[in-house]
Amino acid sequence: MSDYDFDLFVIGGGSGGVRAARLAASLGKKVAIAEEYRFGGTCVIRGCVPKKLFVYASQFHEHFGDSRGFGWTPGEASFDWPTLIANKDREIDRLEALYRRGLENAGAEIIASRAELTGPHSVLLKATGQTVTAERILIAVGGRANPHAALPGHEFCISSNEAFHLEELPKSILIAGGGYIAVEFANIFHGLGVETTLIYRGKEILSRFDQDMRRGLHEAMEQKGIRILCHEVFTKIERGADGRLVAQTSGDKVLEADQVMLALGRDPNTEGLGLEAAGVKTGVKGEILVDAYSRTNVESIYAVGDVTDRVQLTPVAIHEAMCLIQTLYHDNPTSPDHDMIATAVFSQPEIGTVGLSEEEAAHRYDELEIYRAAFRPMKATLSGREEKTVMKIVVNAADRKVLGVHILGHDAGEMAQLLGIALKAGCTKDDFDRTMAVHPTASEELVTMYQPSYRVKGGQRV
Amino acid sequence: MSDYDFDLFVIGGGSGGVRAARLAASLGKKVAIAEEYRFGGTCVIRGCVPKKLFVYASQFHEHFGDSRGFGWTPGEASFDWPTLIANKDREIDRLEALYRRGLENAGAEIIASRAELTGPHSVLLKATGQTVTAERILIAVGGRANPHAALPGHEFCISSNEAFHLEELPKSILIAGGGYIAVEFANIFHGLGVETTLIYRGKEILSRFDQDMRRGLHEAMEQKGIRILCHEVFTKIERGADGRLVAQTSGDKVLEADQVMLALGRDPNTEGLGLEAAGVKTGVKGEILVDAYSRTNVESIYAVGDVTDRVQLTPVAIHEAMCLIQTLYHDNPTSPDHDMIATAVFSQPEIGTVGLSEEEAAHRYDELEIYRAAFRPMKATLSGREEKTVMKIVVNAADRKVLGVHILGHDAGEMAQLLGIALKAGCTKDDFDRTMAVHPTASEELVTMYQPSYRVKGGQRV
Repeated sequence: MSDYDFDLFVIGGGSGGVRAARLAASLGKKVAIAEEYRFGGTCVIRGCVPKKLFVYASQFHEHFGDSRGFGWTPGEASFDWPTLIANKDREIDRLEALYRRGLENAGAEIIASRAELTGPHSVLLKATGQTVTAERILIAVGGRANPHAALPGHEFCISSNEAFHLEELPKSILIAGGGYIAVEFANIFHGLGVETTLIYRGKEILSRFDQDMRRGLHEAMEQKGIRILCHEVFTKIERGADGRLVAQTSGDKVLEADQVMLALGRDPNTEGLGLEAAGVKTGVKGEILVDAYSRTNVESIYAVGDVTDRVQLTPVAIHEAMCLIQTLYHDNPTSPDHDMIATAVFSQPEIGTVGLSEEEAAHRYDELEIYRAAFRPMKATLSGREEKTVMKIVVNAADRKVLGVHILGHDAGEMAQLLGIALKAGCTKDDFDRTMAVHPTASEELVTMYQPSYRVKGGQRV
Repeated sequence: MSDYDFDLFVIGGGSGGVRAARLAASLGKKVAIAEEYRFGGTCVIRGCVPKKLFVYASQFHEHFGDSRGFGWTPGEASFDWPTLIANKDREIDRLEALYRRGLENAGAEIIASRAELTGPHSVLLKATGQTVTAERILIAVGGRANPHAALPGHEFCISSNEAFHLEELPKSILIAGGGYIAVEFANIFHGLGVETTLIYRGKEILSRFDQDMRRGLHEAMEQKGIRILCHEVFTKIERGADGRLVAQTSGDKVLEADQVMLALGRDPNTEGLGLEAAGVKTGVKGEILVDAYSRTNVESIYAVGDVTDRVQLTPVAIHEAMCLIQTLYHDNPTSPDHDMIATAVFSQPEIGTVGLSEEEAAHRYDELEIYRAAFRPMKATLSGREEKTVMKIVVNAADRKVLGVHILGHDAGEMAQLLGIALKAGCTKDDFDRTMAVHPTASEELVTMYQPSYRVKGGQRV
């Protein structure tokens, strides 16, 4: 046992911090974890989990409509937003309690306080004014929505944080952003009956995703009735006399809505954290710079998760935490592996993706085989819903290795997860071809595309 | 060109026959395909496709109920069976037309007739009485539901064939059988509001599936309100004075219902096919015996699909047909690969499975690691529905190879399809462990089970 109060002091009770604290404590280390708000982090409290619950809620309207083609006559349905919020909050409370219990059972000390660094081994607990010391400090304070302070009237706008707690469901909403948060909320609000407009400065939503996914989702959203304005930004937000918000855009449009939501990226939560006092270096966005083993430039201080701005995903933060525990306490230096991460966008339809987009792959490889299918999902044949599932496999022609798979359609997230195993293991298109179809599924399309739809040579489609 | 009327004469317009005919014709071969009923075979006409459409139909009642936990108040819904049948039939008509068009476009001659063998190279067309000759004959006549002629009163019972065309939805149904057809229809009818009883002679439904799947589905079905009687069979079926059916069981129960459905296995459709005349050998069930290249004992006669009783699945029939075309016309002898076939049971919850069950694996390998998780799906946390998703990975301890994966839960069929790629490619548990989770999904559980739940050594759980 060292002369410090703790072996490990974790700042931040999100996915990464909790996992690290729990694992270290269960190894018998003396661990404290400080959280100023609630345990669970962005993921549980105001991210992945409540978001997905909202996604479920927003899909029932389509279920009701789809039922007609299958012989049902659904009754007139109504929706009560406060019920959803209350039920969602109850579930979040339950999950938070699980996180706490996990920490307690492992023997970690839970500190309900903001904690700020005062040196390489010391932390100030703001709630009590007490300073505690630790042999090692892990910063896992995550990120937060960029408030876009440069936008006149940004103070009238909400971020995803507030979207989870609006007192009433707006009749109309404007959402700024083209990333997955903007896109997911646009679909959620639309599905709940809100007149929804998405405004994005780029030429197409979801930059860095495969073009077929970007265009396919754009079209699907517009077809549902979501208005999408690309190449535009808000220039000013004002509150009108009737209480509604009035937004002006760079294209000289004037849009009115009950709410304006900004989803313009997320920033590391490093302000006022005492990084200067401890001598911890940060990057241009304020992110904490770490080496391949999640160590900062200060030997005793580490950081994992969104605050490092490597890959802002819950499983990545957890993975980084697990690697760190291996490195620190198992005599097994382990570098987090950020390669070939499958992800999902819980839009409607969903996007599931793993590996390289066609565009990225074309930059890196001489010749690609592209296998592509667009088809109406079986359920839609009776529901009458106009929708297309798109599946795309990007293959390196030289060695047949599958470089990327991209899916737009129902359950794409579940599909991406399992394709992730195959791609991480380096499977080839021949492995896909050797696999027997499961009928009738949507994903059988992925193992029955025997001939390339087209090839890409030297960056050009041929 | 030979002296025969055709290069290839295909008997049977199901999945296997149509694929073979289409491919051969598109190679310029002179091809005929005879079908006495409708193109599409069991799969399209009275199997996979209409079954899955019924599954969708039967799920809406749960969607309506689930919506409440998410803030919706669904109205009173009603269901009209004739509408479902009509809409389903329209879709089947569309698919049948696609099959026909595919054959026509490839240049195959379509013959609307029953066809019977009269010799190694000759076929009698029953519709016209004409006999035609072919260099090669492919038998792809499929199978049919076992009528259980030994059961007194079997003539009052329906099979899955009739279930797709019942004039009215019964208020109650008894279903005999424990295979996937019995189980799927029990869930369909229950979901449509029919009082449903499943009766099965074995000790647990779905023999040969993993025990966790069998027990898990059994419990889930009972929890929904489906009555399941194992270790019992019907001994007699009678029509009562009120028109309802009365079934007596081996356990001296007397059950009444509007309909009784028998799903007691399927037999090859070889009766009266002229196999004796052509000298084609069959097995004990009447199945056509073929070698590794789908050739019968008669050099010019081949068989694929259910009629050979190898693996009775649509994708297998198609695969066998594709292999046969490689063998016959591409100078590339190709043996169908029946190993590691992923399959799904479209029960509710679904089962998706690939590879060995724990029980099978325990017979074949000295030591297994079993990874098992049972959890409430996220949607159920708000819907309040009592249901468990079960996921299980069977690993050979000696080399960490994943031998089998078994899933009970939503989208299990889609998951099995993609796991099929990884398992066919020989992925290990380490490949699973290296894969980043996609959050929040159900399938992330499959890549985050780091410690075995238990081990099996020498066939015993330890």
